[in-house]
Amino acid sequence: MGPVRLALLAVVALAAAGEAVYIPYNTSAGVVAGKLNVHVVPHTHDDVGWLKTVDQYYVGSNNSIQGACVQNVLDSLIPALLKDENRKFIYVEQAFFQRWWRNQNDMIKDTVKGLISSGRLELINGGMCMHDEAAVHYIDMIDQTTLGHKFIKEEFGQIPRIGWQIDPFGHSAVQAYLLGAEVGFDAFYFFRIDYQDRDTRKGTKELEVVWRGSKSFGSSADIFAGIFPKNYEPPPGDFYFEVDDDSPVVQDDPLLFDYNVEERVNDFVAAALAQANITRTNHIMFTMGTDFKYQYAESWFRNMDKLIHYVNKDGRINALYSTPSIYTDAKYAANEQWPLKTNDFFPYADNPNAYWTGYFTSRPALKRYVRMMSGYYLAARQLEFFKGKSRSGPATDYLGDALALAQHHDAVTGTEKQHVANDYAKRLSIGYTRCLLLNVTFCPPSEMDFSKGKSLVVLVYNSLGWKREDILRVPVFSDSIVVHDSEGREVESQLLPIASASLNIRDKHVKAYLGTSPGAKPKFWLAFPVSVPPLGFNTYFVSSTKKSASVSSKSTVSSSQGSEDSNLQVGQGNLKLQYNAAGALSLYSDSKTLIEANFEQKYKYYIGQDGNGSDPQASGAYIFRPNGTVPIKTDSQVPLTILRGPIVDEVHQQINSWIYQITRVYKGKDYVETEFIVGPIPTDDGNGKEVATEIVTNMATNKTFYTDSSGRDFIKRIRDYRSEWKIEVHQPIAGNYYPVNLGIYVEDGNKELSVLVDRSIGGSSIKDGQIELMLHRRLLHDDGRGVAEALNETVCLDNQCEGLIIEGKYYLKIDPQGEGARWRRTFGQEIYSPLLLAFSEQDGGNWANSHIPKFSAMDPTYSLPDNVALLTLQELEDGSVLLRFAHLYEAGEHKDLSALASVNLKRVFRDKKIGKIIETSLSANQERAAMEKKRLKWKVQGPPADEKVVRGGPVDPSKLVVELGPMEIRTFIVSFERSISGKQLL
Amino acid sequence: MGPVRLALLAVVALAAAGEAVYIPYNTSAGVVAGKLNVHVVPHTHDDVGWLKTVDQYYVGSNNSIQGACVQNVLDSLIPALLKDENRKFIYVEQAFFQRWWRNQNDMIKDTVKGLISSGRLELINGGMCMHDEAAVHYIDMIDQTTLGHKFIKEEFGQIPRIGWQIDPFGHSAVQAYLLGAEVGFDAFYFFRIDYQDRDTRKGTKELEVVWRGSKSFGSSADIFAGIFPKNYEPPPGDFYFEVDDDSPVVQDDPLLFDYNVEERVNDFVAAALAQANITRTNHIMFTMGTDFKYQYAESWFRNMDKLIHYVNKDGRINALYSTPSIYTDAKYAANEQWPLKTNDFFPYADNPNAYWTGYFTSRPALKRYVRMMSGYYLAARQLEFFKGKSRSGPATDYLGDALALAQHHDAVTGTEKQHVANDYAKRLSIGYTRCLLLNVTFCPPSEMDFSKGKSLVVLVYNSLGWKREDILRVPVFSDSIVVHDSEGREVESQLLPIASASLNIRDKHVKAYLGTSPGAKPKFWLAFPVSVPPLGFNTYFVSSTKKSASVSSKSTVSSSQGSEDSNLQVGQGNLKLQYNAAGALSLYSDSKTLIEANFEQKYKYYIGQDGNGSDPQASGAYIFRPNGTVPIKTDSQVPLTILRGPIVDEVHQQINSWIYQITRVYKGKDYVETEFIVGPIPTDDGNGKEVATEIVTNMATNKTFYTDSSGRDFIKRIRDYRSEWKIEVHQPIAGNYYPVNLGIYVEDGNKELSVLVDRSIGGSSIKDGQIELMLHRRLLHDDGRGVAEALNETVCLDNQCEGLIIEGKYYLKIDPQGEGARWRRTFGQEIYSPLLLAFSEQDGGNWANSHIPKFSAMDPTYSLPDNVALLTLQELEDGSVLLRFAHLYEAGEHKDLSALASVNLKRVFRDKKIGKIIETSLSANQERAAMEKKRLKWKVQGPPADEKVVRGGPVDPSKLVVELGPMEIRTFIVSFERSISGKQLL
Repeated sequence: MGPVRLALLAVVALAAAGEAVYIPYNTSAGVVAGKLNVHVVPHTHDDVGWLKTVDQYYVGSNNSIQGACVQNVLDSLIPALLKDENRKFIYVEQAFFQRWWRNQNDMIKDTVKGLISSGRLELINGGMCMHDEAAVHYIDMIDQTTLGHKFIKEEFGQIPRIGWQIDPFGHSAVQAYLLGAEVGFDAFYFFRIDYQDRDTRKGTKELEVVWRGSKSFGSSADIFAGIFPKNYEPPPGDFYFEVDDDSPVVQDDPLLFDYNVEERVNDFVAAALAQANITRTNHIMFTMGTDFKYQYAESWFRNMDKLIHYVNKDGRINALYSTPSIYTDAKYAANEQWPLKTNDFFPYADNPNAYWTGYFTSRPALKRYVRMMSGYYLAARQLEFFKGKSRSGPATDYLGDALALAQHHDAVTGTEKQHVANDYAKRLSIGYTRCLLLNVTFCPPSEMDFSKGKSLVVLVYNSLGWKREDILRVPVFSDSIVVHDSEGREVESQLLPIASASLNIRDKHVKAYLGTSPGAKPKFWLAFPVSVPPLGFNTYFVSSTKKSASVSSKSTVSSSQGSEDSNLQVGQGNLKLQYNAAGALSLYSDSKTLIEANFEQKYKYYIGQDGNGSDPQASGAYIFRPNGTVPIKTDSQVPLTILRGPIVDEVHQQINSWIYQITRVYKGKDYVETEFIVGPIPTDDGNGKEVATEIVTNMATNKTFYTDSSGRDFIKRIRDYRSEWKIEVHQPIAGNYYPVNLGIYVEDGNKELSVLVDRSIGGSSIKDGQIELMLHRRLLHDDGRGVAEALNETVCLDNQCEGLIIEGKYYLKIDPQGEGARWRRTFGQEIYSPLLLAFSEQDGGNWANSHIPKFSAMDPTYSLPDNVALLTLQELEDGSVLLRFAHLYEAGEHKDLSALASVNLKRVFRDKKIGKIIETSLSANQERAAMEKKRLKWKVQGPPADEKVVRGGPVDPSKLVVELGPMEIRTFIVSFERSISGKQLL
Repeated sequence: MGPVRLALLAVVALAAAGEAVYIPYNTSAGVVAGKLNVHVVPHTHDDVGWLKTVDQYYVGSNNSIQGACVQNVLDSLIPALLKDENRKFIYVEQAFFQRWWRNQNDMIKDTVKGLISSGRLELINGGMCMHDEAAVHYIDMIDQTTLGHKFIKEEFGQIPRIGWQIDPFGHSAVQAYLLGAEVGFDAFYFFRIDYQDRDTRKGTKELEVVWRGSKSFGSSADIFAGIFPKNYEPPPGDFYFEVDDDSPVVQDDPLLFDYNVEERVNDFVAAALAQANITRTNHIMFTMGTDFKYQYAESWFRNMDKLIHYVNKDGRINALYSTPSIYTDAKYAANEQWPLKTNDFFPYADNPNAYWTGYFTSRPALKRYVRMMSGYYLAARQLEFFKGKSRSGPATDYLGDALALAQHHDAVTGTEKQHVANDYAKRLSIGYTRCLLLNVTFCPPSEMDFSKGKSLVVLVYNSLGWKREDILRVPVFSDSIVVHDSEGREVESQLLPIASASLNIRDKHVKAYLGTSPGAKPKFWLAFPVSVPPLGFNTYFVSSTKKSASVSSKSTVSSSQGSEDSNLQVGQGNLKLQYNAAGALSLYSDSKTLIEANFEQKYKYYIGQDGNGSDPQASGAYIFRPNGTVPIKTDSQVPLTILRGPIVDEVHQQINSWIYQITRVYKGKDYVETEFIVGPIPTDDGNGKEVATEIVTNMATNKTFYTDSSGRDFIKRIRDYRSEWKIEVHQPIAGNYYPVNLGIYVEDGNKELSVLVDRSIGGSSIKDGQIELMLHRRLLHDDGRGVAEALNETVCLDNQCEGLIIEGKYYLKIDPQGEGARWRRTFGQEIYSPLLLAFSEQDGGNWANSHIPKFSAMDPTYSLPDNVALLTLQELEDGSVLLRFAHLYEAGEHKDLSALASVNLKRVFRDKKIGKIIETSLSANQERAAMEKKRLKWKVQGPPADEKVVRGGPVDPSKLVVELGPMEIRTFIVSFERSISGKQLL
């Protein structure tokens, strides 16, 4: 060796730098038989509001709260998908997708259409949001899903196949069978179920099941349900690849330090084998993403490309880019028999002391607002249809969008930050300009001065399919009022003095919400009965009068401190309530049904755990964790005030300084209406409080009660027990709470005690014979699930804030055993769809000359059956109409009303001729027949079920009669030929 | 109005949702005359190592330290640039760009080539890194810039026009004139200058200047220099648009809430007007980016598109996508006269107590390692050229890359995290396998057993262009050694007992660095003189002998405690050092120059401010902030040990328990060499310490001293004074420190005291007649500039860590006034390029039979002039050769040596015939003539300079003589026709 060579050898470097290291990754793997297949499913979970508002999330503003920008996700996704034809992605939340879509130019739109049609980008779930399943009414679920699916169908010709409810805090039966099977989904994936349930299922490989959510539909509405083993994030082992994430990236450039391909492949294989160990078949899913990830999509795909490439080169398992659809098909192809799951997945706990049952009630005012808007939206679309949908002007679309957003699992749930809750409310308010503050006794139109011969015109619209008798209430100044109906007849009416408590609330809240004081105070509530035809309106005229036969009756007012000697009775009709000597309710009696029941109604509050002890779990927006129960006694200093009159008796009680209650018994009604005004909940003792009311009877209910599933089916609940798995309940109160959307009832074989609600709420039967409802919550600590705010709602006026006061109603009835369903179902529908009021004024009696005073869209002699509701009547852009009827009863729920029902469309649409009617899936994005043919039928372990499922038959286009079996909801697209009458209504 | 219409009107929403809002943004604006033009310059600043290693930054690993991934930046940039042809971007750091480039497929490469050739993506600055300007030697600057520019030229045919040193901590004259003007740059942009200087310049609109960095070159090397008003980030007013940044995004979708276009336009205009107010001409630059930004480029461009679109629609000002090149051309076109700036921008302070002068010394071991590798890399490329560059095997490229990285402004500066410093060292070590630990007395080849007739072959390579006489030192076991030269002649040698202190260090560090103990300990340093021809080698043979005329002399060893009665003198030649009775240096005398000077040399340390007081500024990696000075007295218990012999006298002093010093006077040399071993610096008193040595004389130096600029020009420094602006110095020590790469000197009209260094270091003259060097720093607090680690280097062995010990040398000489330059320049070059050793062994005397023992690449009778160094001799991939000569003297620096010098290439390349020679720019990426023609000539305020610039003339291809004026560096690409001799050397 020459000396210079010797020297040189010592100087030179190890490797020739600069060598090309471009690697074309092989990501083309599909399913491989005989191997464990890891379905790598890239996804992002984008809440349409939570810590930031939906718009802030979309554009990426307010990042100091949370770094999240959905525009980034979608913008960056397209080039990432184009880079490799094997890459796939699912996108879920259509509220975001639509915001993005309308900002794109035609080139991007064409590209995206190509990606979607080739399956590289799949829109799944497909609603505007990923709705909650506890605090959401099924009608809202249907509407928001329909809205999203419609866009997907129209813009891309696609029909989502998969339910993807990965984040909601527990899962409802209605979601599985109605928003799953009836929408045409082949499978439904999620993760939040009780931790004990999950642990059990892991051991028995029962995380993937067939869920039979409907007793009425049985196996005809089965759906494959996949529960994720841990969460909806990448598997354990550091596979997070967002910009700035800490997981080790796959470093496969041999020219750089820290080459780690073997190590990362081993990590991936280990994660796959662990998951395979708790999963049936040789298919597992890796959910590659989480909240607001893929802001720069390439950073994930770059690493997934490498993992797939090197894992498959390694050969121990097979990894493939996949979607839940591909995964579902692979599961189906395995031809396995799956365990059966019935009922639902409520309540959800992720820890022994962490039952997510607080959110059933959190933000009760928002929950009420959403429910109110929901009924209103139903009615407004009917009116829009009657008028003919405007092509350019305002439409109900905005309200539809706002309502859809509000169904999100951090919206109506009350688990968002306060400013985000305000945003949802703002959106709803934009679509609603009525007497918004009627609940705080503020309604400018009705508070007009009748002295100058003017009178108030009250237009009353009934969106239900049956004729309706009800009592209207409006605040008025005058103490001599007369009410006339549309035919000029005087109508009996009653004036109820407005309590000063109410007027105080009115003054404060009107100023707080509107910025100006409301001016002179009305003196009375005017109550009068109205009668409104189905799908129609009637008009009433309220004017001042000095002398008239039917001048409004002033209520008699009496007070009682609960005198020892006499029981007090209220009620002018069949139903009587008796108060005992202490001023407390003691007896319920109905002279028609002969029901008589001992009866107490009380308030209490739970002290919210503050999380400062050794166990850091506080009670908060999500989680209900009581730390002691405090009974609230009626303050004996305040008299019980009884207002009596020809229409209604009211019992006013100031329960304590921050709870006011009015109990009403209407002469013509056979139920009790209770209005509660709760708040500001005091916290000066340092304790958060969760206020409940309870109805206590001596009924022997054997730990059993019933609550509705998303406002639809009633599900049997048994205290400290789950029907399909063994539970140890560490929180005996919180662990027995369930969501209540429609109502809750108990029965003792002799009678049924039912309570119906005006919004979603948490409820339970903590003791036999008892029902309780959580009305309001004010808490001082965050419960550690991300929202990072205490649920402490306040109202601020003149820079002073105090706890939010909420107002609401619940309705109570005791029926003979077997009779309760009729009231719960039919009256329940009336609660959902209250009469809609519009106000005008007339000077003299000229109104009737220029207006139609009374109207029904239907044949005047026709009415929908008592067991059928018209859920949707909505004109679409192309002039066709979306029509949806629901049977309101479950199979076997009522001896008469659970029968097959019929609707005669010719009589419903008396003025129009139906040209074409197509029955569709629930979300109206495909023909029903095609959907049924296409939907996968899953095999269930065990013997076949003994079923008698009743569903309506096909609609004969000549007869146009729609049959509905129990619980059936049928959806149609109807085209009208022309207006038969030729008359325009408006 | 019909009643239904009435009701409807109330229900409907404000706006028709779903309307298309795609907006094609107009971003096409160019410069508009008569308007304020805001040049929006999108950029990212990507440190090639700082808190993470360069590879970690590239791939995005170790994100828990810092979320940063350069691959994301470049990956996301391409689709973002393609989206709008007006979008522009500059990319700077070629180390990253090259890593990325080699991972791309041909399609991406073609796309990028298109973007670059159309100017939408511009590669500026263009070195491998953005090198530091204080701790970096100009040869390293040239090499790393050449490496980057070469790639850009070869791959893209581009020549960077702009210097972009936006982050280095102060700016050197050499950067401006050599790495700016001589590279062909038209302008140079940066931001870190003293805060007082900046404030002054804002008031006088002098942030943009013409910088004349070279006294020798005068206006011929002027460059336009733009100093940013605040930093290199977006202007004040929240214009940060990284994913997750908090700045308000431009929300221009009218269908979403929080539309803010007007507000954001106003913010932008306000920022522009504020900047215009301190800027000449109607062009200002917004630097849109900062460290590691554009990880998802689209999020920036999306917002910049909107800002440009809406700002220009607003019309008050004109905003345009721009680059520094476009900005520079606009400035030039304004035909303005600019203020003149000379000298440099050191030191840098960003606060009264925050002088960034600590990093001049931080990590002295790394700094030494880099300097050592730098000289080695120069020599290694020469050897590679002689051998012929391997096409497939190992090459010096890796070392070149590693060295380039090490010049980064958070590499050799010592301002990176410890693990990153380790990474730089690892990269350097991969290219170097020699007696790496010779500085801790460990060199296995020389420690062989000579007893069995074997002898050590020492090959000594001289990379300089002149013949060299030097003293070699290697550790040996035997005490009877004979050295022969290549012609078989015995060479006088001297054995110096190895101090036990040195052996302890050796044992510990060899084990710490190599993992194994070094085994038996050598007893002596063997010193012997060598003589090596220019660009050549000589061979020496070391063997054991019992009897020989020239057996190595053992040094006489004497000790002194500083006896009162006698002064002690050392030195066998002209130069003598005298130690006083206290054992301290007292007199320097040179019998040849008749210089005699009183002289003290001492150690002291500064206590590092801990930042715990009211002012939180600690002393740290960047910042030197002393909190008191503590003199270090020689421990009188330890004797002064004097080793004398025929070659060298050494004075060993254990200064205190952690400072050991050896002062050497070689018989044949006229300077003093001082070796210092400092550490572990104790910190058990809770104080960080910064150790300095000082030389104190009674010279009257009038506050004035001289330090080199990046190892090249000497710049006059005056204490507490800046030549071009008025300073108030709040830190009288730290504020007078300057970087020293080559040396520092003072003069008193009669003589010059020069100190040369073996690495970059901080130095000053704190008092008249005094010079001090900061040798080592160990600090316990972070100084708050991002590195988030205390500069507390340790060495760990057997799980015990102690402070790092550093070893080094400085060289001192006192010359008659006007004579110092010769030593500083010529010997300075020898320090940079030490003799390179290679070892082998022979058994018997067979070596000479098979090897060429002595060699010079040049004509044996030729030598480069004393004032010229061969900076580069490097074979390129195409077989051509990069050749670079430097004149070593400034104009007027030395009466003889500052003259025009000549190099005869025919004699340099005696065996080869030059076929073609092209003179190029300094970075070899364009022909020199074209560069000179093209470069912008800037107008300067005031009268024209009175200049006599001397530069060499064109090279006549027949004569092949290269002339060099003072300070001139000339770069050539040479092609050889064939080897004249036909002989292969190797």
